[in-house]
Amino acid sequence: MIGASFGLALRRAGFDGEILGVSSPRAVESAVEAGAIDRGAPLAEAVGQADLVFLSSTIGRILDTLRHLDPLVRPDALVTDAGSTKCEIVDMAREKLRRCQFLGGHPMAGKETRGAASADAALFKGRTWVLTPDEPAELETPIARGFRGWLDRIGAVVETLDSDEHDRVVSLTSHLPQLASTALASVAGRVRRPEISGSGLIDMTRLAASSYDLWRDILATNSAYIDKALADYIQTLEHMRENLRTREMQQQFERGAALAGRLRQAL
Amino acid sequence: MIGASFGLALRRAGFDGEILGVSSPRAVESAVEAGAIDRGAPLAEAVGQADLVFLSSTIGRILDTLRHLDPLVRPDALVTDAGSTKCEIVDMAREKLRRCQFLGGHPMAGKETRGAASADAALFKGRTWVLTPDEPAELETPIARGFRGWLDRIGAVVETLDSDEHDRVVSLTSHLPQLASTALASVAGRVRRPEISGSGLIDMTRLAASSYDLWRDILATNSAYIDKALADYIQTLEHMRENLRTREMQQQFERGAALAGRLRQAL
Repeated sequence: MIGASFGLALRRAGFDGEILGVSSPRAVESAVEAGAIDRGAPLAEAVGQADLVFLSSTIGRILDTLRHLDPLVRPDALVTDAGSTKCEIVDMAREKLRRCQFLGGHPMAGKETRGAASADAALFKGRTWVLTPDEPAELETPIARGFRGWLDRIGAVVETLDSDEHDRVVSLTSHLPQLASTALASVAGRVRRPEISGSGLIDMTRLAASSYDLWRDILATNSAYIDKALADYIQTLEHMRENLRTREMQQQFERGAALAGRLRQAL
Repeated sequence: MIGASFGLALRRAGFDGEILGVSSPRAVESAVEAGAIDRGAPLAEAVGQADLVFLSSTIGRILDTLRHLDPLVRPDALVTDAGSTKCEIVDMAREKLRRCQFLGGHPMAGKETRGAASADAALFKGRTWVLTPDEPAELETPIARGFRGWLDRIGAVVETLDSDEHDRVVSLTSHLPQLASTALASVAGRVRRPEISGSGLIDMTRLAASSYDLWRDILATNSAYIDKALADYIQTLEHMRENLRTREMQQQFERGAALAGRLRQAL
């Protein structure tokens, strides 16, 4: 879904080079049909001629690909990725990818659906796309400038973060919301008629529809920060429990409303 | 917002009787402007001529009004309400309102905004409207049948629940989602740039924008069940924390996705 959306977005923004897809025959067929890629190719063939290598599979597959990529790349190429956690991926690239530049990335746009059939050329428009260079100079190489130019043209809002800081921030802004939603759905699902609910439960359980296949790797590669985020969340909930009838709860509501307002203003 | 939406919905469904509003001069003016009521009136005057008395203020104000309503009502009238918790309201009505019938109600439709200016004639369409009679026969009196007829005509889906069971169910399907959202916004708000987030955080913090004014009374009148709901939620989150890297997490995701799917099918 992410890879095919990137292909569609590039096309819509006027990119006229060749776009090759590396995936299963079925996924390749679906991506060609969607107009997201020109054709499929084996990894070695595709990477051997690519200016930009965009890794958008699960984190586990990205790590695996990075282990084998070095002999295949052109030295003037840029390898980047769309993995939802960055420390393990950036570490792996630093260790294994020596012959060309790597720049970690995380487009913060998603859907609960997967595959090229759900691809959307406008997916990244107005959404944050994090880049995690080790040094600011990595953003200024010719190929990195070229890549950033295309991110601008597809409407992404580029933010630069240290990969460790990225993983800490998303543990709170992305991974915790997912687990909060899944846990809520699991608890609310115990009532006999969960349909007796306001529209709030619908909003709060949208994320719970997400596939575990994608989350397994996220949880495994960011478990220290996620553990800390869950601990903070649990502590806040315990504090609420102790203050259901006190003024302290009013402050919790005010803090929450301030963040909700700030997010809505930003987007 | 709820009272004015009910007035608008009745008008759109063809109700041609008089609709009186009891509120502050400013709220009355806004409701008249919205077409939700014909005019404002003091409580005694409005209740003295009403077939249906619909109490849609905060729970605290509903309880207060119930204390004073008995001498004012017509014996063939029906008093009902829109309070988000039912046990305290139903108990108060049972004790204080002797001269006419009371039927507890809870339209499960809401917005984060308040007041007649946000009123919406379609607010209740397809949404659950819980009624909490002590005995099924209370639904079959002429005035209760008349009221239920109008609920059908405005598109509400009536569900009948014992008031204690109502308060238990909504502690999990409505009050817990609110507190989960507020706590999440409070925790995610601690990062310097919460805008670095996926669309999930936006969904998960919509409820956090809700006003504490409405929630103070809900928390105070359903604290035992809310305490239990929070405890269940915290236990589930602790269990997740201990299982970030195990297969147990997959089961949590599957349970969550099942509830998310079921809710989406129902609505």
